[in-house]
Amino acid sequence: MEKKYFDTQMMEKALEEAQKAFEAGEVPVGAILLHQGKIIAQAHNQMESRKDPTAHAELLVIRHGAQALGDWRLLETTLYTTLEPCLMCAGALLLSRVGRIVYGAPDLRHGAHGSFLDAFSPKHPTHTPQIEGGVLQEESADLLRQFFKNQRMKHETVTGSPL
Amino acid sequence: MEKKYFDTQMMEKALEEAQKAFEAGEVPVGAILLHQGKIIAQAHNQMESRKDPTAHAELLVIRHGAQALGDWRLLETTLYTTLEPCLMCAGALLLSRVGRIVYGAPDLRHGAHGSFLDAFSPKHPTHTPQIEGGVLQEESADLLRQFFKNQRMKHETVTGSPL
Repeated sequence: MEKKYFDTQMMEKALEEAQKAFEAGEVPVGAILLHQGKIIAQAHNQMESRKDPTAHAELLVIRHGAQALGDWRLLETTLYTTLEPCLMCAGALLLSRVGRIVYGAPDLRHGAHGSFLDAFSPKHPTHTPQIEGGVLQEESADLLRQFFKNQRMKHETVTGSPL
Repeated sequence: MEKKYFDTQMMEKALEEAQKAFEAGEVPVGAILLHQGKIIAQAHNQMESRKDPTAHAELLVIRHGAQALGDWRLLETTLYTTLEPCLMCAGALLLSRVGRIVYGAPDLRHGAHGSFLDAFSPKHPTHTPQIEGGVLQEESADLLRQFFKNQRMKHETVTGSPL
């Protein structure tokens, strides 16, 4: 299958996860993890429901993926996420040696692929992943915009839209 | 109690956690988390035993601390860790709004307080913690040196000493 088409298909699955977060009242970000081309983990942001600041979609699929493989080294894996990874998730991706990272929308406030800072440009001592953004960017961003619009209409405390 | 003396006492407790990691064959790093001056979480690195790339001491005390407080926002907290936080842990400290971070030894390969890169200098959109290193630096570093020396003697695979 052509790579670009495959990436779009996988990002659609990450978007399905983001939609679950949206419906649960969580900032809508979703992620999936593939090992040798097969999905081994999928998750959405659950910071509020788990009361866990580390429960970003990416960190959850990294943890679930490591359990599935029985190894903290996630060799031969690709992670798809609807939003540019934050610093925490970028660090976890480097530590766990995820080979390729594909994301949807940029996170202008917290993104660690150049938006807030660039965690991927300095030569890391143990791992150099591929990373690219912009796959289903508008769809990923639209879901986030809708979420923050709804939050503002409810006059609820809003941590801040990444867009 | 004088602040410097209190910091040293708390770092001794973090070192006790690091010693547990050492004895379990894990890279010896320990951390404790205080809320309003009282310890609410303590943990050591468990990457190997949990087969979890995110099971750094700092990330574990952040998660346990959030459970203890029932909130992902770790307001009025201080984290002590024997090693300069990596990118992942630095990101988690920013997300969770830990107010003050005190560490022992620098991590020359992975440290995110200037060693690998500096996650704390750019103005973060939601949080600006205090951070300082060098408390019980030699004791923290000695334990790590001894661990990696033992690993080399056993001819085991070594991820790489931070020193």
